[in-house]
Amino acid sequence: MKIDATLVGFIAGTITTLAWLPQLIKSLKTKKTKDLSLGMLFFLSFGIVLWLIYGIMLKELPIVLANGIASGMLFIMLYLKIRHG
Amino acid sequence: MKIDATLVGFIAGTITTLAWLPQLIKSLKTKKTKDLSLGMLFFLSFGIVLWLIYGIMLKELPIVLANGIASGMLFIMLYLKIRHG
Repeated sequence: MKIDATLVGFIAGTITTLAWLPQLIKSLKTKKTKDLSLGMLFFLSFGIVLWLIYGIMLKELPIVLANGIASGMLFIMLYLKIRHG
Repeated sequence: MKIDATLVGFIAGTITTLAWLPQLIKSLKTKKTKDLSLGMLFFLSFGIVLWLIYGIMLKELPIVLANGIASGMLFIMLYLKIRHG
């Protein structure tokens, strides 16, 4: 049961992390981030760092990996939003 | 230790879930979702449903609550993106 949950977590983490790739590519290409909410990007970045801490505390690798990589992508998105408005 | 992790998870879940509120309000108001990536919203919705299943398997309430509410908000964002382009 534990192994199955970890597998589901790995797949979930891979998908929710890679989900930010098309957004990142789109924003880097168009240099337009007007329709994105600064509040969403800010709170999501902050919350994802907390999820990362949570994953470290639970020693659950899928949570750690997914939120580690996602926080990096979110920080770049946040930078793009602040830069392009 | 377990209680602390659950507390961190609850705070993380509350923040990452509520993070979608300013985006939802903004998109509902402006009816403009052009700068949002359809791929991001699609894969995030799908992945968050998998996180929900993962939380149910681990019986971790913060993961279940956060991803349950977040998936609802993401589905509305996905609808808005498909509708407004």
